[in-house]
Amino acid sequence: MTSQHVKIFDTTMRDGEQSPGASMTLDEKLELAQWMDAMGVDVIEAGFPISSNGDFEAVRAVAGVVKESVVCGLSRAGAKDIDRCWEAIKGAARPRIHSFLSTSPIHRKHKLQMHEDQVIDAIQFSVTHARNLCGDVEWSAEDATRTERDFLRRAVETAIKAGATTINIPDTVGYSFPQEYGAIFADLIENVPGADKVVFSAHCHNDLGLAVANSIAAVMAGARQIECAINGMGERAGNAALEEVAMALKVRGDALPFTTQIDSTRLMRASQMVSRITGFPVQYNKAIVGKNAFSHESGIHQDGMLKNAQTYEIMAPEDVGQGGTSLVLGKLSGRAAFKDKLRDLGYELGANEFQDAFSRFKELADRKRHVYDDDIIALVDDQIAHSHDAYQIKRLRVVAGTDGPQTAELDIEIDGETKWTTARGNGPVDAIFGAIRALIPHEAKLDLYQVHAVTEGTDAQAEVSVRLIENGRVGVARAADADTLVASAKAYVAALNRLAAKRQRGPDAQESAA
Amino acid sequence: MTSQHVKIFDTTMRDGEQSPGASMTLDEKLELAQWMDAMGVDVIEAGFPISSNGDFEAVRAVAGVVKESVVCGLSRAGAKDIDRCWEAIKGAARPRIHSFLSTSPIHRKHKLQMHEDQVIDAIQFSVTHARNLCGDVEWSAEDATRTERDFLRRAVETAIKAGATTINIPDTVGYSFPQEYGAIFADLIENVPGADKVVFSAHCHNDLGLAVANSIAAVMAGARQIECAINGMGERAGNAALEEVAMALKVRGDALPFTTQIDSTRLMRASQMVSRITGFPVQYNKAIVGKNAFSHESGIHQDGMLKNAQTYEIMAPEDVGQGGTSLVLGKLSGRAAFKDKLRDLGYELGANEFQDAFSRFKELADRKRHVYDDDIIALVDDQIAHSHDAYQIKRLRVVAGTDGPQTAELDIEIDGETKWTTARGNGPVDAIFGAIRALIPHEAKLDLYQVHAVTEGTDAQAEVSVRLIENGRVGVARAADADTLVASAKAYVAALNRLAAKRQRGPDAQESAA
Repeated sequence: MTSQHVKIFDTTMRDGEQSPGASMTLDEKLELAQWMDAMGVDVIEAGFPISSNGDFEAVRAVAGVVKESVVCGLSRAGAKDIDRCWEAIKGAARPRIHSFLSTSPIHRKHKLQMHEDQVIDAIQFSVTHARNLCGDVEWSAEDATRTERDFLRRAVETAIKAGATTINIPDTVGYSFPQEYGAIFADLIENVPGADKVVFSAHCHNDLGLAVANSIAAVMAGARQIECAINGMGERAGNAALEEVAMALKVRGDALPFTTQIDSTRLMRASQMVSRITGFPVQYNKAIVGKNAFSHESGIHQDGMLKNAQTYEIMAPEDVGQGGTSLVLGKLSGRAAFKDKLRDLGYELGANEFQDAFSRFKELADRKRHVYDDDIIALVDDQIAHSHDAYQIKRLRVVAGTDGPQTAELDIEIDGETKWTTARGNGPVDAIFGAIRALIPHEAKLDLYQVHAVTEGTDAQAEVSVRLIENGRVGVARAADADTLVASAKAYVAALNRLAAKRQRGPDAQESAA
Repeated sequence: MTSQHVKIFDTTMRDGEQSPGASMTLDEKLELAQWMDAMGVDVIEAGFPISSNGDFEAVRAVAGVVKESVVCGLSRAGAKDIDRCWEAIKGAARPRIHSFLSTSPIHRKHKLQMHEDQVIDAIQFSVTHARNLCGDVEWSAEDATRTERDFLRRAVETAIKAGATTINIPDTVGYSFPQEYGAIFADLIENVPGADKVVFSAHCHNDLGLAVANSIAAVMAGARQIECAINGMGERAGNAALEEVAMALKVRGDALPFTTQIDSTRLMRASQMVSRITGFPVQYNKAIVGKNAFSHESGIHQDGMLKNAQTYEIMAPEDVGQGGTSLVLGKLSGRAAFKDKLRDLGYELGANEFQDAFSRFKELADRKRHVYDDDIIALVDDQIAHSHDAYQIKRLRVVAGTDGPQTAELDIEIDGETKWTTARGNGPVDAIFGAIRALIPHEAKLDLYQVHAVTEGTDAQAEVSVRLIENGRVGVARAADADTLVASAKAYVAALNRLAAKRQRGPDAQESAA
């Protein structure tokens, strides 16, 4: 290989969204895609266009706003899949079609029910078809690591001859060891005709905790693209974490002479954004982006740190944008200061949105002595998420405690008309949710209810995540309020709003892979 | 090496407890140690006896109850440290002293302020001293991976000659790559006289996401012990996760001919226990023990799974004790069924404790249609945690909602006398905590407040975690109740009870390392 540049291919919005319960709205995908574009991600996989109309629209919208990154859509091997993918991405400055087909014996037999020659024909057809539409075509051999080596060589050669420009070798089941995985790349690069004309790509799952090590082993063997996801999102135990891959290559530049173009100072915010959008918490001891990743507890470590930070630290918190929540604004902060702060935090709001955010900020500053960066992020994200709601909470009153019954009195505006009811429950949250169910009848099942304190202190804003499931559709929402119970009511109603929006978009037939 | 058995050395209670905010009580350490003993952990590192009286007592208590596992305590290189360690562990069936000293140039210069010969002398002295007390001595070269190779060989040779039976080579800063880390072991095993008479051990930190891969690379190079922690707990980004290491060796037995004696079906419960004790959430996509680790979202994966589970799964959820929360008991379940269930879940309660648990179970079953395994675990753990409380909540009444102010009326029993007050707050939780502060004046700062729904459904028990910090002391507690607000009050008061207990134990001078 002539170049030592390793492309970072982010699949948070495709393989990451396949995490059960992690579905994202179009607005959320746009927000995330713009952040990734600015962060220097080489390729953004925005979705699987044929899987649903919602996914198609989201990929098309992402293609329209991303400036630098390649925007990629996933498709299976059929012409209809590939055409639909192209429809979604063709408006991008730099579009890519990503087509895949399983190659392993177990997938050929049980999933595809195709024999070897049929698989080869399908690769030939699909890559040729994609390449006729788009100059940038990636082909993936699903379950490559459990494929016979000679058949994998034959499959890859077919894809290259048909015009693929990137060849991806996924460890679909998260099964490989670094040595094994690197050896597959070395074999293909040495033995497949035309291998020197394409970029080889790693795509690792973390079922045994080896995804980052496997990705780096692939690069050492000649791969020049790593597929990964923020916070290691993805099917089952997820994909290699983007932040770990990027920092491993950066921190160990001494031993591994490879570079990425990731602006690592944006990693922390990317992690928080994904966690907030999906409602998935980040483990405290998560590498790079966990809240403890740079914390030192023991006296010996603290002592060493005071003498020389390098005694226990191989990177600085600032390198990854872990700044510590800085005290920023208060009651007396004005419009200009608030606008500056939003810009620092990566938000560009329209005039109306800004006015709304500023009012909410002043209201918060009245109730809370110190307003931190995280408070503002929660406030604005909340506003973005709930800007198109059909149901709105007007008033809530709750009586609760050890001597039941707990009761909730709730007013909700539905299509411009305010309705109210009172409900009892087993606890205040149960009472509130009962009242909501009485006012907005629905079949959805509560799959997740979680409360986080956004910032420190007892007057912290509480952030509540709610996930509802209705006929296979998922509605996730979060809401922030100084009152946990109000935040709970808001989050539940917001999740109902999302389900309502999804029902309007029509039936989902979500299918994905790799 | 003749044996292919790899020892699993668990350091959840030592390096894991060094995670900021993860301190454990004596009772919690006993509960965890007994579970690990039964799970087949070869060595349990129970603490750092000289660091505090509390840690000393916990290590001594663990030494007293563990049957099969080696019980190990950590110490620095001084005679006083080692003697104190021996005092704590000498009652164990199989005691081990674990002594460490830094060997890297940066640590020698900034932390130890010792030159090479002084370091060698200290190793010689400490290992000899430890070996005179105990037949099983482990020596660790702190920051080994940043140590000059020739000095590391000299240090290890010194430790072996002085009588060390296990040599640990920690990657203290989480800096190594698998190839590099394996090469260190290969070098030492080949070149250090006496290397064939000791067990080499890996201890990897996960700062770059490579801890599991590094541990396995060490084993492939000849190491026969892996130091790891449940949920990957530990300083900063933590240690290699025990569950990932154990399952990687088990699942890939075809490629790596090594065995451990871990009963993998106990892994999930171990993970839940550690999460509950520390209040640290487990990421959904955490390998092996995350709630999504075995979930398949996409249509294509589901389709493949229905045709043949092996298409996307390299291990089964049952292998690691991920059972799915089974419906178990209801209103009509009797004493015998409840007792059986407790035994299945790994609890052995005394008669009084059982009676108390059974009453609480009946009370819960009256309020909640279905009682799941997780409900019972939460209920019993809650009871164990709060059995020695100085302050007890008698009554709570809260009025909250969108139209403030939120108020809490609270009765607490303090030393047999019930006191009450009313407080207003910025949200119901703030009001409750304000009332508690009025009744039990204290300086502690609220560091964490978190709510989790224990089981599914809107009548779920809520579990609340609270972490308080007072003069460097940490009080963590969790409480479960169907009413989130009652659980919040209970958790806060429980955390105060813990701080009160810690104040009685005297000043902590917590120091640790590796």
